[in-house]
Amino acid sequence: MPSRNPALLLSQTFLSVVNERQIIAYISALAGPADERLRKGIGDDCAVIDKDGEKVWLVTMDTLVEDVHFDCTFHPPEKLGRKAVSVNVSDIGAMGGRPQFVLLSVGMPKGFDEAWFRAFARGLTDACREYGCLLIGGDTVASPQGLTFTLTVIGETETERVVYRSGARPGDTVWVSGFLGFAAAGLALLRRGVEAGNPAFDPFREQHLNPRARVELGGKLGASGLATAMMDLSDGLATDLAHLCKQSNVAARVVARDLPGISALAEAARVLGVDPEQWVVGGGEDFELLFTAQPGDRSRVLELGSQCGVVLTPVGSVVEGEGVTLIRQRQDGTCEEVAIAYQGYDHFRNRAGG
Amino acid sequence: MPSRNPALLLSQTFLSVVNERQIIAYISALAGPADERLRKGIGDDCAVIDKDGEKVWLVTMDTLVEDVHFDCTFHPPEKLGRKAVSVNVSDIGAMGGRPQFVLLSVGMPKGFDEAWFRAFARGLTDACREYGCLLIGGDTVASPQGLTFTLTVIGETETERVVYRSGARPGDTVWVSGFLGFAAAGLALLRRGVEAGNPAFDPFREQHLNPRARVELGGKLGASGLATAMMDLSDGLATDLAHLCKQSNVAARVVARDLPGISALAEAARVLGVDPEQWVVGGGEDFELLFTAQPGDRSRVLELGSQCGVVLTPVGSVVEGEGVTLIRQRQDGTCEEVAIAYQGYDHFRNRAGG
Repeated sequence: MPSRNPALLLSQTFLSVVNERQIIAYISALAGPADERLRKGIGDDCAVIDKDGEKVWLVTMDTLVEDVHFDCTFHPPEKLGRKAVSVNVSDIGAMGGRPQFVLLSVGMPKGFDEAWFRAFARGLTDACREYGCLLIGGDTVASPQGLTFTLTVIGETETERVVYRSGARPGDTVWVSGFLGFAAAGLALLRRGVEAGNPAFDPFREQHLNPRARVELGGKLGASGLATAMMDLSDGLATDLAHLCKQSNVAARVVARDLPGISALAEAARVLGVDPEQWVVGGGEDFELLFTAQPGDRSRVLELGSQCGVVLTPVGSVVEGEGVTLIRQRQDGTCEEVAIAYQGYDHFRNRAGG
Repeated sequence: MPSRNPALLLSQTFLSVVNERQIIAYISALAGPADERLRKGIGDDCAVIDKDGEKVWLVTMDTLVEDVHFDCTFHPPEKLGRKAVSVNVSDIGAMGGRPQFVLLSVGMPKGFDEAWFRAFARGLTDACREYGCLLIGGDTVASPQGLTFTLTVIGETETERVVYRSGARPGDTVWVSGFLGFAAAGLALLRRGVEAGNPAFDPFREQHLNPRARVELGGKLGASGLATAMMDLSDGLATDLAHLCKQSNVAARVVARDLPGISALAEAARVLGVDPEQWVVGGGEDFELLFTAQPGDRSRVLELGSQCGVVLTPVGSVVEGEGVTLIRQRQDGTCEEVAIAYQGYDHFRNRAGG
């Protein structure tokens, strides 16, 4: 069944023309060497710059484009305003930081509806308050077609408490917060309008419409020193774990049956006729945290998740080498191993240090 | 004669639907009160946040949209890349700061041309280097129609050296750097393709295609303490001086014949059949500096401009009251006074503290 809005598929078709990672690599190369002002540039969830010796600023930037990242036919404006903030502060939390300041640039088309915008702005400013950050500036421009929102968020943390993507070591356990694939399942349900009234599917839809960033959890994982590497799950486990492994010069092995979410998604997957593993392994925009920790810290990690009211699940381990392997148990009890790195849901959208 | 690209007029028609200042005012109200983390939020060229007590960060964000802010049919990509940086660092310079870090979010349509993008990226990264800033991150997304570029620039300066829009006092002299109206004239020439070969018009076209930000001048005006208020001229003298007056709770009187640029624009204005005063008073995107200084500092201001190789011209004075008045000399020697506040070229694009 086709999407109600064909433009929503733009990102996928566009990928055949140009690969986002190539563009980022190209810009990175042109940008030239960094200097002492910069602790980390392109290649992590945020850029990291020195504040005052003891602390650093974390800076991230994300753009949401109508009919690429959101569809106004089913996205309530207030939830979209919240999501615009959440997807950005998620990057701050994923490095262990506390969000502080938000800048917003809005591109608005001619047919713009004032009531819609007021609801969007209310959601956005409410989310800013809830995450503890101030809206300090931005820009407003005309857009030839469709709404676009670009946010820059600045966070801070102690210099020694920043958690980078690059700290995973062989032997570490791979953890994820919450459930995977819910946002992808929710988007599929919303697009197809299938059994919209089924309340059992509400958490999936809500995860697409109004994800919450794991800022408190990220901050505690940073402050405790438990996370050896961390990032947020924006492009799906397969892609994001590959990024983390590449930055850490390691490989990872993930056990399919340990991935949290598959059983919860079974009914929605049946209704839509898809394999729930696709959502869990490849689905983007969950904005959960993906991190690694030493195996001996297992109970401390679980305790910390419990303090934040978030389920934390060990899903695999870090090994030497490169790439990401998914281990599936066959019906006959034997195992198969599949390389899944970068096979995820790539909506031509990434965190180039932002 | 119509514009070659009707979409270029989008911003003007859109203004009848919604007023940018209203949107900014609405978001500002929703954003709620600031706190001690923020020295200045929405309402100046940059947001100002504390760095380490002695210094502050200046943060600005600007978006350029194809067919609203630039037209690829005549804008060479390398110059567009430079301009994207210049219009942002201009805001840093306009508060007396030094640009440090740049984040870039790119929205790219399907028909995207790799050679074009490489030239754009080269211009952008060259400009970063020349202004002394590092490209530290950003985002890349698919765009349903047309290119969009959003940049965030972070600058720094000494806390006591920031020049706000709010410091103008009655009796101060109003100054501008360089020439006014060149960018508007250049855009009109480029759009109409009139006498493209006339080298006398090159400076006007260049001012639209590749403006230079007055960062050195802005820094010296801040460090010297000479500027009592300052901003960059992005929306035209009439609009921007009105912003400065409003923030300072004063009015300004400007003498038409003192405005630098009118005589240089005479021939281009004759060819296009327009009044050059429209360009000089209402033309946007000159990215020159508009500032006020005490009358006794006149020679020190001129000396400082000379150090930077920039012509500085006193164009009027600050008085009590509100609004901006243009004083014109009639043919018969008498004067007429016209209220010009906010009558300028408003391309639905502003610096909402960014």
